Amino acid sequence: MGHVLPSGGGKALMNVDDAALLLLDHQTGLFQTVKDVTVAELRANVSALTRIATLLKLPIITTASEPEGPNGPLMPELAELAPHAVYVPRNGEVNAWDNDLFVQTVEKTGKKTLIMAGVWTSVCVMFPALDAKAAGFNVYAVVDASGDPSQMASRTTLARFAQSGVVPITTNAVICELHRTWRRPEAAEIADIYTVATPDYRTVMESYQKAKDVGSAQKQYQDRM
Amino acid sequence: MGHVLPSGGGKALMNVDDAALLLLDHQTGLFQTVKDVTVAELRANVSALTRIATLLKLPIITTASEPEGPNGPLMPELAELAPHAVYVPRNGEVNAWDNDLFVQTVEKTGKKTLIMAGVWTSVCVMFPALDAKAAGFNVYAVVDASGDPSQMASRTTLARFAQSGVVPITTNAVICELHRTWRRPEAAEIADIYTVATPDYRTVMESYQKAKDVGSAQKQYQDRM
Amino acid sequence: MGHVLPSGGGKALMNVDDAALLLLDHQTGLFQTVKDVTVAELRANVSALTRIATLLKLPIITTASEPEGPNGPLMPELAELAPHAVYVPRNGEVNAWDNDLFVQTVEKTGKKTLIMAGVWTSVCVMFPALDAKAAGFNVYAVVDASGDPSQMASRTTLARFAQSGVVPITTNAVICELHRTWRRPEAAEIADIYTVATPDYRTVMESYQKAKDVGSAQKQYQDRM
Amino acid sequence: MGHVLPSGGGKALMNVDDAALLLLDHQTGLFQTVKDVTVAELRANVSALTRIATLLKLPIITTASEPEGPNGPLMPELAELAPHAVYVPRNGEVNAWDNDLFVQTVEKTGKKTLIMAGVWTSVCVMFPALDAKAAGFNVYAVVDASGDPSQMASRTTLARFAQSGVVPITTNAVICELHRTWRRPEAAEIADIYTVATPDYRTVMESYQKAKDVGSAQKQYQDRM
Amino acid sequence: MGHVLPSGGGKALMNVDDAALLLLDHQTGLFQTVKDVTVAELRANVSALTRIATLLKLPIITTASEPEGPNGPLMPELAELAPHAVYVPRNGEVNAWDNDLFVQTVEKTGKKTLIMAGVWTSVCVMFPALDAKAAGFNVYAVVDASGDPSQMASRTTLARFAQSGVVPITTNAVICELHRTWRRPEAAEIADIYTVATPDYRTVMESYQKAKDVGSAQKQYQDRM
Amino acid sequence: MGHVLPSGGGKALMNVDDAALLLLDHQTGLFQTVKDVTVAELRANVSALTRIATLLKLPIITTASEPEGPNGPLMPELAELAPHAVYVPRNGEVNAWDNDLFVQTVEKTGKKTLIMAGVWTSVCVMFPALDAKAAGFNVYAVVDASGDPSQMASRTTLARFAQSGVVPITTNAVICELHRTWRRPEAAEIADIYTVATPDYRTVMESYQKAKDVGSAQKQYQDRM
Amino acid sequence: MGHVLPSGGGKALMNVDDAALLLLDHQTGLFQTVKDVTVAELRANVSALTRIATLLKLPIITTASEPEGPNGPLMPELAELAPHAVYVPRNGEVNAWDNDLFVQTVEKTGKKTLIMAGVWTSVCVMFPALDAKAAGFNVYAVVDASGDPSQMASRTTLARFAQSGVVPITTNAVICELHRTWRRPEAAEIADIYTVATPDYRTVMESYQKAKDVGSAQKQYQDRM
Amino acid sequence: MGHVLPSGGGKALMNVDDAALLLLDHQTGLFQTVKDVTVAELRANVSALTRIATLLKLPIITTASEPEGPNGPLMPELAELAPHAVYVPRNGEVNAWDNDLFVQTVEKTGKKTLIMAGVWTSVCVMFPALDAKAAGFNVYAVVDASGDPSQMASRTTLARFAQSGVVPITTNAVICELHRTWRRPEAAEIADIYTVATPDYRTVMESYQKAKDVGSAQKQYQDRM
Repeated sequence: MGHVLPSGGGKALMNVDDAALLLLDHQTGLFQTVKDVTVAELRANVSALTRIATLLKLPIITTASEPEGPNGPLMPELAELAPHAVYVPRNGEVNAWDNDLFVQTVEKTGKKTLIMAGVWTSVCVMFPALDAKAAGFNVYAVVDASGDPSQMASRTTLARFAQSGVVPITTNAVICELHRTWRRPEAAEIADIYTVATPDYRTVMESYQKAKDVGSAQKQYQDRM
Repeated sequence: MGHVLPSGGGKALMNVDDAALLLLDHQTGLFQTVKDVTVAELRANVSALTRIATLLKLPIITTASEPEGPNGPLMPELAELAPHAVYVPRNGEVNAWDNDLFVQTVEKTGKKTLIMAGVWTSVCVMFPALDAKAAGFNVYAVVDASGDPSQMASRTTLARFAQSGVVPITTNAVICELHRTWRRPEAAEIADIYTVATPDYRTVMESYQKAKDVGSAQKQYQDRM
Repeated sequence: MGHVLPSGGGKALMNVDDAALLLLDHQTGLFQTVKDVTVAELRANVSALTRIATLLKLPIITTASEPEGPNGPLMPELAELAPHAVYVPRNGEVNAWDNDLFVQTVEKTGKKTLIMAGVWTSVCVMFPALDAKAAGFNVYAVVDASGDPSQMASRTTLARFAQSGVVPITTNAVICELHRTWRRPEAAEIADIYTVATPDYRTVMESYQKAKDVGSAQKQYQDRM
Repeated sequence: MGHVLPSGGGKALMNVDDAALLLLDHQTGLFQTVKDVTVAELRANVSALTRIATLLKLPIITTASEPEGPNGPLMPELAELAPHAVYVPRNGEVNAWDNDLFVQTVEKTGKKTLIMAGVWTSVCVMFPALDAKAAGFNVYAVVDASGDPSQMASRTTLARFAQSGVVPITTNAVICELHRTWRRPEAAEIADIYTVATPDYRTVMESYQKAKDVGSAQKQYQDRM
Repeated sequence: MGHVLPSGGGKALMNVDDAALLLLDHQTGLFQTVKDVTVAELRANVSALTRIATLLKLPIITTASEPEGPNGPLMPELAELAPHAVYVPRNGEVNAWDNDLFVQTVEKTGKKTLIMAGVWTSVCVMFPALDAKAAGFNVYAVVDASGDPSQMASRTTLARFAQSGVVPITTNAVICELHRTWRRPEAAEIADIYTVATPDYRTVMESYQKAKDVGSAQKQYQDRM
Repeated sequence: MGHVLPSGGGKALMNVDDAALLLLDHQTGLFQTVKDVTVAELRANVSALTRIATLLKLPIITTASEPEGPNGPLMPELAELAPHAVYVPRNGEVNAWDNDLFVQTVEKTGKKTLIMAGVWTSVCVMFPALDAKAAGFNVYAVVDASGDPSQMASRTTLARFAQSGVVPITTNAVICELHRTWRRPEAAEIADIYTVATPDYRTVMESYQKAKDVGSAQKQYQDRM
Repeated sequence: MGHVLPSGGGKALMNVDDAALLLLDHQTGLFQTVKDVTVAELRANVSALTRIATLLKLPIITTASEPEGPNGPLMPELAELAPHAVYVPRNGEVNAWDNDLFVQTVEKTGKKTLIMAGVWTSVCVMFPALDAKAAGFNVYAVVDASGDPSQMASRTTLARFAQSGVVPITTNAVICELHRTWRRPEAAEIADIYTVATPDYRTVMESYQKAKDVGSAQKQYQDRM
Repeated sequence: MGHVLPSGGGKALMNVDDAALLLLDHQTGLFQTVKDVTVAELRANVSALTRIATLLKLPIITTASEPEGPNGPLMPELAELAPHAVYVPRNGEVNAWDNDLFVQTVEKTGKKTLIMAGVWTSVCVMFPALDAKAAGFNVYAVVDASGDPSQMASRTTLARFAQSGVVPITTNAVICELHRTWRRPEAAEIADIYTVATPDYRTVMESYQKAKDVGSAQKQYQDRM
């Protein structure tokens, strides 16, 4: 947030002005084969990513693999939370980067930093991540907004990302890396987005609010005495 | 649901007409000590229980342990989903059954089957469960709408329930035990409640709906040919 | 197998001549919510049960909960492996025992020992198991040919079975309890059924056969010298 | 706490006036073989039990198995936290109940409810627990203030306790069962004891206090405006 | 050890003078299907049981299921550690209690307490355990000197033992329950047997011996000064 | 599949026209020491690899380590699914790359991309993978079609692959990397191969087909009205 | 410890004379979202780091993210154990390195080796670690004195550190890397610090001391004879 | 084994003629803090390494950290299995490479490949491994013949090894990398060493031998007919 944050820090972090979000094959049929994260957490993380990207005006591109077949429809939250996202249909390609329209749509954003998530991580994220990296993009793979069919696949995918120079990251870190400072007008909505990806944070906020109210009420009571 | 289901089955199951739901100390401070279920799942399960009880008109009684102190406020979903629930304040008693008003409120419902959930399972559920069992009630303890501070505590609590004649049960089973038949007017809402306690069921329903639509569209297309 | 085994043992075991197999709601939609056993193992175990029951001529009754809806169709292996099984349609009842035709079909077998498996264990097995137990049957619940939506549900269900006098058992134990002796004509087919429920047993048999062949060949070679 | 709590509840709970705490073989050599709980948690739980028992004036009896040998000395916290505890030396008996002085010391307390913890759970707790149960005592086994040499041993021990009528319980539940009400003079110290057995509770209290102070300060600030 | 221990304790424990050890189907082929304990631990536990039984002169009966077939030979440690054990061949019966000679051999010992271990726990131990219990014996099932083909099977088996009145126990507890006192001539050998079932105990003893030597040497050094 | 896919994507992926599959020591004796993946899954993954390679005409080379000894015979599925595979016997070398005939057979394929799987991963895959990498090949190690004797070994092996520039991958990713597009004549058979490596995908397809049929039938019914 | 240790070793280790400790956002509200380490262990590890740094006179810098809000206050141990630590307030920046005062404070220490720990690891440690690395510092990230909101986040963070050239390390290794030799005046206090981060070490020391005393006493006794 | 194996393979593997084994601080006191591998497995792995190194005449150097203190004595197996090993005493240095005599002893072997194992992995192995790597040695760290005080430490250590160019390896892989071919005179003893590090291999061999004997006997029987 160069325009918000005067600091000279963050040179090693992603630049929010140069980033786009690619959501790859978050389809309900594929979800039923995911075993390294619960589907409930996966959907929540994808929703959180979609909300922060929408709030901070990152381009969002979605795509699906054979959505008329067993892979199923895209999770409906995507259309609800990011009506402005561009959907790119594919012609059967497993690797989104094999689809010319998809690559052109990415290039048209003018962004060089790509935040990718999808199902399966080892395939639908890995393949375009490797291709995009080879094409000169900075690539972040959001592993908990993605899903793999086994724990062993998940560990293997993480190792392959690291080996290939794709940066493995989690949803909460993406939000923070885009967020950068609480001194901004969107702070309240960002706080709410955190509670989607990290539900315990909601509990912490509820406890905090109540305790603050108790403190305030006790003070008022003491003052009256 | 005697009035819905003509069958002679279910004699060994809970009788929806004789049941009340007791929600004990679902407070945000206590949640932060729960380690045998995620807080997100715990809250979802409590919400699902609250919704099914409200839909099927079971009495609901809520209570809290020192909500002005560190234990924190009741989770706000309770008031939203069950505005008709009766809240019983306590005077510091750890065991709700030690509070006369609580016991009277339970007795006033006239129900002999008590479905209990709370935090901690080993304390806030266990103590009134044992007392209620001793007082002649049929008691069900919903272990995944409750929470304990360790996995070891959770296993121990389960063993103590079983040993004491308190029936251990999970949220999805309570819903089913109250639901009993899909041939009832509330079926659609009950299906929705299942997706709260079992989020994968939502994914299954989405895949199903899409595939049915594809089948319908293909049929229409074939018919036109 | 009184007719095979002259021994006086086994008085505490299930009597193969008095047993029937009930397969409850093994539907592909429900499978996608099962989290306490892999679906691959679950299906293998159900297939193994179906095969041993068919081989030893136990009555098999199958049923499904709303198979036209999201719960999905019965796993097709059932029809392949047990074409003689009786399928009982239901009218929306969650609890098969709530369906009169189901209860009558069970009673018509004349068997007093019921081996039950299904999805969810905590519901589709638990409810008829409790009702059947109350009606005087001996009930065995095959927990790994059944499935529950969480590990916590699975542990809870196991405790409730034990508390209620329903005997918890696993597929390999059911096969053995029906099998009883290797001195019977079906031994080779039973050995093959074991490899379905316990795939490592197949590996053991392959290693054994090869080593025996090596021993035989070496002997032949030595004899020639 | 009959003298504190006017309620008629708690009939199924342990009676603080009739209870004694037996701490069996909490020795540092044996600790090094414990694998079902971390030694840090085990020691913290034993300390918490010792503190609540001391605070509420329960008799405490300690003993050790061959403390001059590899089993090692008693954990020193016992002497620090409960200087009044009675130590009973043994003459090589594995089962404390085999030692006449130990049994006499227990009987001399006049209490009929025995809260036991020790290392190993499956031996040093199990044996006197079974003997005491047979001798007519009510016995509680505190499984997380005890330790077993494997997870499998731990599960097996829990099942044997339940089967034998010994009540399995955890440290936090013992504290609560003795505590019973926050309206008592010892409340602040009891709150502190909770933080020993459940360290997350300390964190909750710290967050609470800070938030209350913030609320109070903000109120003061608002009032000034 | 009535003849060693003058105490009146231990009434609820097994009586060493009335106990026999039954080792059922500890065969190397079956071992390869065991998944609830490592085979290394399983063999060590069986060896420890065999040694303590041999030392204290308990009758030992071994048997095998089709040792010429894939189930494989008995683990050779049995013959080494208990040359006096009686081996009962079977005629294909899965349940050892179905074999008349086996039952007669058990009865001939005159013992009423049977300590059983075997592979699979759910079958080779469960079946004779249930039959022996029904025939009036006291039965202990040593779950970690036995093995089951899955963790789910292991948990289920434990629940079925508890439900049936068979006492679930672990190897270390059996040794202790037979051992009873360190004031006996066999103490040193028993200490060595503990290190087989609980290898960490060996480490504790080694550290102890070294530290004691250091203490002795330092004292000697100080005395010289 | 350059000849199928017109796109310019996939530059960073394996080239199906330049790849060979090496299956190393998938022997039933070695399988019995594998502890990081179930043998059932391991065999299914090897079968899936073999089928996709056969379908897409990749050269397949198999080899075994001392198949007349305890290591046992190759899993028989290999010969069934890939009758055209070339088997290279070894003369006792642990590392297949130490065998000249093996290296020559690999070189004769003319392929520079080697997809390797075997048992143990840390040895039978690692050694030739390192040697082949050093010799200038692109090497992929399929970790879930391979097996290691412990979880710790599995993690260590993954780290060593990544460190050495060998690409760690899973079976489902290999299939996808070879598959590349659903718009090809082999699509139906490839879909079937997916169900072998990812059995939940079969369940998804069954649910899909049934739901589509329901949609079609309901449409037909509506049209008639 | 160049001034203590004459050896030429340790060239690849951190140089105690060039190191500073940065403690980032160890706040009680954030603690309640940590799921990859227990909060009790996390606090103990942070305390141990603080003590060793204080003892060996490393500069310590602390900071907090919005401590008046839900994130909560810094854990109070910091002020107790390191009263000399410099606290840098922030103006809402998530990344401490975005705060100019923080960077200046770091630079003013003149140290080029930064030992960082904080909550969340993936954010509050990762961001300044990456920035500091880019600015030419040697950076160590102490992963068990830090916390992440899921196990998946924890694994991902570890991979990203390794990929970025930040050295992942644990508390016990930091202590050892600073400690370097037992021949130094602070040895006794360092031994005590080990017991904070590795509580089992305390148990080992207690057993050792007792055994040494036994050895000494026995020697004395023997000498008297 | 250049002198045994004519092949040109193995260029990327360790060279047995250039390797030495360094065993660092395998002391019984430290063992009691190890939590990422069981002590039984750790000791077995160290014994297996010692045996293969002795058999193949690799130099072995052992050392200990303060063996008169709580860290305890070296495991006695070392002296039994490798009487020729050189023991280097230290003067309090945590890092063996800080001890000049140790470094000289290593250098005197003339070997450039160092196989290291020790307790703790993160310290006693890591520090000399990093120093030796910096000094130009090829370093292998045997992670399962080493031990760390937590699972988190273990994962972190593995990542740091990989990041630093130290090769992480397991005991079974070291044996194989030294073994290289079954066509050597030591084959039988090497097979026996495998059973120490991989106990399931022993079970496989026992099953194999028995089955081969059965095959031989059946052949003999058939021939007689």
